[in-house]
Amino acid sequence: MIGWPVADPVIPTVAHPVLAQAAKAASDAFRAARERHDHAQLAEKTAVGADGTASMRLDLLVESAIAEVAEAHRINLLSEEIGFVDRGSAVTLVADPVDGTANAAAGVPLSAFAGALVRDGTPVEALTCWLDTGRCWHAVAGAPAPYRTSGRGELDGAAVSLLRPHPRNREAWWRVTSRAARVRILSTSCLEAMLVAEGSTDAFADAGSDTHRIVDLAAAMVAVPAAGGAVLDVRGRALEIDPDLTRRWSGVVAATPRLAEEIAGAVLG
Amino acid sequence: MIGWPVADPVIPTVAHPVLAQAAKAASDAFRAARERHDHAQLAEKTAVGADGTASMRLDLLVESAIAEVAEAHRINLLSEEIGFVDRGSAVTLVADPVDGTANAAAGVPLSAFAGALVRDGTPVEALTCWLDTGRCWHAVAGAPAPYRTSGRGELDGAAVSLLRPHPRNREAWWRVTSRAARVRILSTSCLEAMLVAEGSTDAFADAGSDTHRIVDLAAAMVAVPAAGGAVLDVRGRALEIDPDLTRRWSGVVAATPRLAEEIAGAVLG
Repeated sequence: MIGWPVADPVIPTVAHPVLAQAAKAASDAFRAARERHDHAQLAEKTAVGADGTASMRLDLLVESAIAEVAEAHRINLLSEEIGFVDRGSAVTLVADPVDGTANAAAGVPLSAFAGALVRDGTPVEALTCWLDTGRCWHAVAGAPAPYRTSGRGELDGAAVSLLRPHPRNREAWWRVTSRAARVRILSTSCLEAMLVAEGSTDAFADAGSDTHRIVDLAAAMVAVPAAGGAVLDVRGRALEIDPDLTRRWSGVVAATPRLAEEIAGAVLG
Repeated sequence: MIGWPVADPVIPTVAHPVLAQAAKAASDAFRAARERHDHAQLAEKTAVGADGTASMRLDLLVESAIAEVAEAHRINLLSEEIGFVDRGSAVTLVADPVDGTANAAAGVPLSAFAGALVRDGTPVEALTCWLDTGRCWHAVAGAPAPYRTSGRGELDGAAVSLLRPHPRNREAWWRVTSRAARVRILSTSCLEAMLVAEGSTDAFADAGSDTHRIVDLAAAMVAVPAAGGAVLDVRGRALEIDPDLTRRWSGVVAATPRLAEEIAGAVLG
């Protein structure tokens, strides 16, 4: 069992009730799951999710709590395991119930709830909460966020978080790494994106492995531009809120549009 | 400025007063430094440390608080920046005041105080505290710790934390990475070692870049064996508490002695 406490999320009072309730439900379900299940049980793959990958028990337990919030508000839900639940609403909650599930199930204290409210296909508000500590980042599209990116424009000497390398993108991974001053792999995309948004690191990227799903990027698509940064795909594909979760992107989340383009260029070589 | 709170360390009551007071002093100084200085001021390199690398303002502020504890107890101190302070005592406090300084100064919430009490050259007790959250890990040499490693013996499929790669160890870094199921770079050696000790990850290694100093490994040398694991150097060099902080190792911290040897073998190729 993982003995460490799970902090209540510190949710800004201005957050939309759907996002606030979803984050609280995720945190409560996350805590309950850790109190009832050991490492192996949390990580047990008990189903295949809508994104085509295996779902861990922890993902399903937390997603179930979020699904109840969407149902109570009679809005659509697009989430990692359950896929798209269409209630005919103009509003969709796009959620990654537990970003960094492998971290969370193992006990590495780096995992997050990430939710975005999408109206007619456009993300309009986002809330990301670091489940272990309760730190939250909230943003509304088109309004300045209460945090700012580092403002960095150059990859040379930057601090960059990356997805772990795979054989299929080894050379691209090294091209980015060899130009950065610092490289981290925290294995929690949504939390790493918020570290970019608040200026603690300069960028976060999938160096061309096409691993990202839209649920990994939706909250960042609101929060990072609101903080002065940019989110794009390495290969220039539009980041679309698509119910088909088998679609993949190589997301770049950066302190400035210029840095995002530089990283995409380095990945493409 | 970094706005997030710094939690008080939750120090086990059985910890030696020197370690308990040093951890509390480190946490208090860390909090004060973040309240007074912005990112750039915390990271400003204001001196050259005893390990031959530049000392950041944050390191010096926290080390100064720890040095007062060692002085009050009239014991020797071996610490990253100040080097060896010899008071003729049989006991030395070996400390890394802020492990993961670059994280801490940037705002990435992964940094730790790590201290070991050394008697006549042998580490006998250790305390590591994650400064951001207050989580602490305590151990006494020769006694079982209240946490256990994962017990994993094989590198193939393991979860491994690594120091970031350098051009000089790129191939060795990749050899380890290509056999592991998960790879992380958290950039905080002492905290990563404790994640191995508590079984949240299987191993942490410097893949042959000879970056580790003894202050990065001393606390792990007590805590990890007490939890069932092993600490060794990739090239078989003895891990010695040496006042000369320019000496370097490539440490491997693993869930079992067998896994430590497998990783060392993979690094050497």
